[in-house]
Amino acid sequence: MPRLCKPAMMAPEHIITVEETLEFAEKAHAGKPQLPLALRLIRNTGVQKRHIVQPIEQTLRHPGFEERNRIYEVESKKRTPEVIERALANAELRARDIDAIIYVSCTGFMMPSLTAWLINKLGFRPDTRQIPIAQLGCAAGGAAINRAHDFCVAHPGSNVLIVSCELCSLCYQPEADDIGSLLSDGLFGDAVAAAVVRGIGGNGIELERNASYLIPNTEDWISYAVKDTGFHFQLDRRVPGTMEPLAPVLRELAKDHSWDAGKLDFYIVHAGGPRILDDLAKFLEVDRDVFRHSWSTLSEYGNIASAVVLEAARRLFEEDAPAPGATGLIAGFGPGITAEMALGTWGSDDSRSAS
Amino acid sequence: MPRLCKPAMMAPEHIITVEETLEFAEKAHAGKPQLPLALRLIRNTGVQKRHIVQPIEQTLRHPGFEERNRIYEVESKKRTPEVIERALANAELRARDIDAIIYVSCTGFMMPSLTAWLINKLGFRPDTRQIPIAQLGCAAGGAAINRAHDFCVAHPGSNVLIVSCELCSLCYQPEADDIGSLLSDGLFGDAVAAAVVRGIGGNGIELERNASYLIPNTEDWISYAVKDTGFHFQLDRRVPGTMEPLAPVLRELAKDHSWDAGKLDFYIVHAGGPRILDDLAKFLEVDRDVFRHSWSTLSEYGNIASAVVLEAARRLFEEDAPAPGATGLIAGFGPGITAEMALGTWGSDDSRSAS
Repeated sequence: MPRLCKPAMMAPEHIITVEETLEFAEKAHAGKPQLPLALRLIRNTGVQKRHIVQPIEQTLRHPGFEERNRIYEVESKKRTPEVIERALANAELRARDIDAIIYVSCTGFMMPSLTAWLINKLGFRPDTRQIPIAQLGCAAGGAAINRAHDFCVAHPGSNVLIVSCELCSLCYQPEADDIGSLLSDGLFGDAVAAAVVRGIGGNGIELERNASYLIPNTEDWISYAVKDTGFHFQLDRRVPGTMEPLAPVLRELAKDHSWDAGKLDFYIVHAGGPRILDDLAKFLEVDRDVFRHSWSTLSEYGNIASAVVLEAARRLFEEDAPAPGATGLIAGFGPGITAEMALGTWGSDDSRSAS
Repeated sequence: MPRLCKPAMMAPEHIITVEETLEFAEKAHAGKPQLPLALRLIRNTGVQKRHIVQPIEQTLRHPGFEERNRIYEVESKKRTPEVIERALANAELRARDIDAIIYVSCTGFMMPSLTAWLINKLGFRPDTRQIPIAQLGCAAGGAAINRAHDFCVAHPGSNVLIVSCELCSLCYQPEADDIGSLLSDGLFGDAVAAAVVRGIGGNGIELERNASYLIPNTEDWISYAVKDTGFHFQLDRRVPGTMEPLAPVLRELAKDHSWDAGKLDFYIVHAGGPRILDDLAKFLEVDRDVFRHSWSTLSEYGNIASAVVLEAARRLFEEDAPAPGATGLIAGFGPGITAEMALGTWGSDDSRSAS
């Protein structure tokens, strides 16, 4: 069965702490009625610092959608190659061993997708499949793992590279002061992550089953307003409460696999915000600490969109690796409201996996 | 093996003939040096008429990227449901039988993708996978068929709905007068198409093998410049010559399948323009008429981007259906420069396909 190998991740060099975020918010909303709310939202994110691709002064300016997107192209080309090299090394593969690249990113738009540039510059074969996904937002990390799983099953022996490039700071909208914007100003961070799903061999999470679930009639709860100034993030007040309907879906998925979602050995879940993680622990009846990789990702980098699940998975690999056969769950949450879910076991026996 | 069932297609009600296009070009470029070139490019497209979602007077105005994208959302929601219903009927399935929706469109951007709305409004199951692809341009029709094929192999017995919604007229840029823009002003049309790939049963093209190919170092030959005014189509002069390097790739793919690419029973290829079809016939050494479904699609609707291969396939189904076992090729071409290719045979024996 396909295995998700150890991801690699890069957080950009410019850092903004929660204290600095609060200072900027005090300046940006000085004298305005939304100031107390903005400060409270920022304090409640659970984010200690975030990494961004430009110095904060530049980030706070909006040079127009065209220029923003130009910066996205420059920065994505600058930052993805090294992360990809590390992800390939983690999987003990080279670029020419890769059969498909799934590129997920909702914070800039290019056509052709960065996949074409990556194939040309990094030595991937010309027959590498390109699967760019821009419209699944934070759920795209889970979706990428699931589509990589499917690809490896459909094409036995193949390997899929996942690249997540989320430069959320390039979607900062200085003029926006709705609740969703105030929250996102304190929540989202930038990151590039990559991982390989190997069809045969490798050490990591053996992907056994995947599924998706859309909470009915919530399509406008998380969305982009697409404007002349680019993508404007919109968040409904009800989003933090979505783990209550999603936990039973995760339970059912595990049950269909003869597992108990409350008694797995590891959990890799999207760190949308603290309420998401707290509620999921509550409704799955698991200890808060089972989401420690998600909590630490959130605290150190903010919500890095589709890169969260890859970074949380990387932390799992960094920790004492689970015992072979240990059971786990991967779940990304994002617009739709969509959950992209996977079940897998820890596999580290190369001879067995080749069977 | 998965089968591509008969596609459905809808061309919008507003029609612009080649004569009208020439008249508009004469007005738009009156007294400018590019006028003779513009007129020659338009005459050479092989397009007789195109269908567009708004009256021509509105189409020629640019109300801003935000408004354009708002129109995209309204029009896609207005026009996709009926086409999807017909595609489902063609496959003898209902919405609840669908396990994944692949939505391809490069002419508007929404997050969440239209997939979320479709699931909510048309009775698809909440666990339907959403695979939105916005960045493969005209190659996305072929890519959608190939990813649907993969999905059905990975999830035996499943069914995938493909929806292509290309409202190219919403990317018209009145100010642009480079060659690529002048050509695209006379070439692209609007259309919505849909088709189901059934994992088991159905009548249609049994998908046997798929592949992708990127012509090295051509990533800037077809591209969008993303500006405050939206997507600006950019086309390199060398694009019409790309069938010379791609024909050998198609030959090799067929050879690997023990077939001769020059001697297949049917051909469903992207009608990027007349030179693409003429050159492909020349380099594959096939009669020009084998691409008749692509030629008639081009002539009647213009280049409808990712919808071309679905519409050309629909015409194949409308014609006297090929004999069971007839061999064929599907190929979409688009930015990258990327070819998305598939090989399949005509299957109409339901009892056999269920094995």
